[in-house]
Amino acid sequence: MNNSTVLIKMVFDRWNNAIKNCDDLLNALSDEVLMKQIAPGKNRGIYLLGHLIAVHDDMLRFLELGEARYPELHDPFHHKPDNVATPMPSVAELREIWKEQCREQSDRFASLSEGQWFEKHTAVSSEDFAKEPHRNKLNIILNRTTHLAYHTGQIQLLKA
Amino acid sequence: MNNSTVLIKMVFDRWNNAIKNCDDLLNALSDEVLMKQIAPGKNRGIYLLGHLIAVHDDMLRFLELGEARYPELHDPFHHKPDNVATPMPSVAELREIWKEQCREQSDRFASLSEGQWFEKHTAVSSEDFAKEPHRNKLNIILNRTTHLAYHTGQIQLLKA
Repeated sequence: MNNSTVLIKMVFDRWNNAIKNCDDLLNALSDEVLMKQIAPGKNRGIYLLGHLIAVHDDMLRFLELGEARYPELHDPFHHKPDNVATPMPSVAELREIWKEQCREQSDRFASLSEGQWFEKHTAVSSEDFAKEPHRNKLNIILNRTTHLAYHTGQIQLLKA
Repeated sequence: MNNSTVLIKMVFDRWNNAIKNCDDLLNALSDEVLMKQIAPGKNRGIYLLGHLIAVHDDMLRFLELGEARYPELHDPFHHKPDNVATPMPSVAELREIWKEQCREQSDRFASLSEGQWFEKHTAVSSEDFAKEPHRNKLNIILNRTTHLAYHTGQIQLLKA
């Protein structure tokens, strides 16, 4: 196994592990608990779940794997802060979307070849990429893994 | 730049970014605020700061870069859950240790060659490593980056 193969595996092991940790946690929390704030005056569980879906939805575009699938979730869960007055899907609906998204993204990520993971992502210009080859598609996975871990640490606080 | 060089840079960019995010956050919180629980009945800020130091202290051994520097912090902040009755250093003392640790680890990490990052870490046997070459030293950095992000997301809740 060469170093590139090893490193792609390392990054995806981390990503898959972070997804599993979050998924296990969500499964351990009731819909009712996810409607609560993680701490007084802070985001609700439902907002963080929707936020993760919205941020992950943007990954497809960065990776040239298609358009956003859930554009209607970007405004309430990404562009806007949590607000009980914002219309949003139910926790049950978001759970279904989360599961479907995890499944679909896992399939799509598997469609990229090793070489493609080292190609530039769409948020960087060809000129900048020539100077900064680390701004590749694999870096999107790495970046979103720490984002996912950050918010999983917060959702964890809803556990009794 | 070959793929290994690029990937080592990607992993260290994430690690350094996660350290900076946590450091900026700690600097924005007073000692008094860090004595508070991040949510009712949950860990205090001081415990999470000590926990990060204790977990990072173990990295040296895994990376064959020396012995733990702060063994006295492993028990109160890693082996034991948070407890107001546990004797522990002050927030001011932990801040100093955190800064010194970040500085020292940055120097020590820089001393490893590219090839050394792909060597096995000390928690894996040579037999297992032959089958699982992703269990290398660089993977320790990757793994601790998500751990750091997870707890930074929690400490963030202390911010007004």
